[in-house]
Amino acid sequence: MYQHGGDIYSNNIKLDFSVNLNPLGMPQSVRQAIAENINDYETYPDYSCRRLRRAIAAKEGVEEEDIICGNGAAELIYDVVRAVRPSRALILAPAFSEYEKALHAVHCDVDYFFLKAEQNFTLKREEDAEVFLKKLDEPYDMVFLCNPNNPAGSILKYDLILEIIDKCAVSGALTVLDECFIEFTREESFAGKGKKYPNLFLIKAFTKTYSMAGVRLGYAISSNQKLLSEICSIRQCWNVSAIAQAAGVAALLERDYLERTREYVDLEREYLRKELINLGFNVIEGAGNFLLFSQDMDKITHKVPLYDKLLERHILIRKCDDYKGMNKGFYRIGIKSHGENEILIGEIKEIVAQ
Amino acid sequence: MYQHGGDIYSNNIKLDFSVNLNPLGMPQSVRQAIAENINDYETYPDYSCRRLRRAIAAKEGVEEEDIICGNGAAELIYDVVRAVRPSRALILAPAFSEYEKALHAVHCDVDYFFLKAEQNFTLKREEDAEVFLKKLDEPYDMVFLCNPNNPAGSILKYDLILEIIDKCAVSGALTVLDECFIEFTREESFAGKGKKYPNLFLIKAFTKTYSMAGVRLGYAISSNQKLLSEICSIRQCWNVSAIAQAAGVAALLERDYLERTREYVDLEREYLRKELINLGFNVIEGAGNFLLFSQDMDKITHKVPLYDKLLERHILIRKCDDYKGMNKGFYRIGIKSHGENEILIGEIKEIVAQ
Repeated sequence: MYQHGGDIYSNNIKLDFSVNLNPLGMPQSVRQAIAENINDYETYPDYSCRRLRRAIAAKEGVEEEDIICGNGAAELIYDVVRAVRPSRALILAPAFSEYEKALHAVHCDVDYFFLKAEQNFTLKREEDAEVFLKKLDEPYDMVFLCNPNNPAGSILKYDLILEIIDKCAVSGALTVLDECFIEFTREESFAGKGKKYPNLFLIKAFTKTYSMAGVRLGYAISSNQKLLSEICSIRQCWNVSAIAQAAGVAALLERDYLERTREYVDLEREYLRKELINLGFNVIEGAGNFLLFSQDMDKITHKVPLYDKLLERHILIRKCDDYKGMNKGFYRIGIKSHGENEILIGEIKEIVAQ
Repeated sequence: MYQHGGDIYSNNIKLDFSVNLNPLGMPQSVRQAIAENINDYETYPDYSCRRLRRAIAAKEGVEEEDIICGNGAAELIYDVVRAVRPSRALILAPAFSEYEKALHAVHCDVDYFFLKAEQNFTLKREEDAEVFLKKLDEPYDMVFLCNPNNPAGSILKYDLILEIIDKCAVSGALTVLDECFIEFTREESFAGKGKKYPNLFLIKAFTKTYSMAGVRLGYAISSNQKLLSEICSIRQCWNVSAIAQAAGVAALLERDYLERTREYVDLEREYLRKELINLGFNVIEGAGNFLLFSQDMDKITHKVPLYDKLLERHILIRKCDDYKGMNKGFYRIGIKSHGENEILIGEIKEIVAQ
């Protein structure tokens, strides 16, 4: 069963708030690159993505040889799981369901450490972090983290991630750190840390950062050359299209796009947060280009079937019922343009007032 | 190690004869579709490729539900192998090396049935076909065939394929029939036969047929719904880009492109065949948009290092040394435009005369 946002194909949707893309849209330079390089799409793509990896290496301050590209970050999740074939893995949940799906595909036992709603889905309190670190004493082969967390948007502190990676190194677990949304925050990426931590497999995507979900392009950074070779040996050679390679190189040439993005997201996040709170919703504290919120029964006199009511108005939001570790009544919305965000708030106002 | 044609990125190449693409080039309508649909590439692609599968179903005369799309045919080879996880498989060789790579990735024991050079790499003689059919009495989980064969271009007769599928059905083996080059021939596809043979997994590609190798798009046809579901459950949801989906739909709307292609390929194949024979080479009898040939020592007085000599002239052809079951000295060339084919022949003439 399909359990993700973005399914605008099954529904008649005018505004899709169910996905978490960059509200500035795909850069003009990327559109141009896709159109201008059409002559190159006849022939096979470069199987080792040389130009693209060079550009990523420059952006992230890492070695080209430590980069591996994928047909979206999602492919890399499956790739790394297939290469490691873990017997036992731990997911810091709630989390992107593809981690679990990829692990189940190799018949891995999957454990969950559930972040608590009442703690804003964070490990900020020292005792929560301690309990999680203690959990890592168990013999896991892989540990999945996402920073900021999806769907909550909660942040894992840098020092805590370091401690987690260190503990995993001791126990022999690979830490898969998904940073697909980190460019929307002001948190420091672990990209530059790869050399020091061969048990770190860091995943990033162009999908969300540059609003290129239909193009399919992600990458991973790891100094574990054996792991990267193993991944290449068990998948097709030409997994990244020539189009995605050209688009990715163009995206990385953008100058101030990411800074403009962060400024825009900060403003709109605050706008949506305040409006939703005013409407009686409970908004989870977090960062990134999306917001998690729930109905606070004290403030809203009757429960509103928000998802269905918005769908009637051709607006899609993300119900979070299917996320393991989340109660009913949580919704995630991607942060879109101010005009679109205003429309959403206007519609919710009408629904709540009914 | 990379062992395929098309690596124009490692060499300074002006003419690439190492790949087997459509000499007519990517249809104009496909280029247009890629450029015109750019607004759709921001959002996630349709995970179930609905429009594209509808168009393929109409073209192939099969049910939509019997079609599964891939990020190139190559992905589907890995997908089906990962879903079946065969213990023992048979490859009719020489063959595309990704079959073997995909099988080794799941630690499958791989057997080969080698077609013989002196038989033009066919099973045309009744006794050869009998030996192969006999081989299928052994307990295989999967059998890989390619029609026309790559790199030889040899054809498997329709009735023989039927017999093979029937024998595999009895022994419980899945027949993977790769028809990626069949549109370049006048042979009948097995596409319409899927319903009758649930143990058939038929693979086709847009890559070669429409010269879209950089776009990445292939599909498979099988009436084995359990197998198709299993494949979807062990891979990412969004494996086919929105670009590939738009390009594929446009390609299938082409009216006479495939017929024009076949006429062009027939003419150019004959031109190249005659010229190569005149130059003293031995050309393997076959069909499709490529030619396999070798140096016939009786006719050429000294062995010419053809691959290296052409590379000096910035022309890439496919050395076939790395194909299991092929001796040194076999070369494969894709059939390109007449002008390009003339250049190749001109250069070979000069090399041979030296």
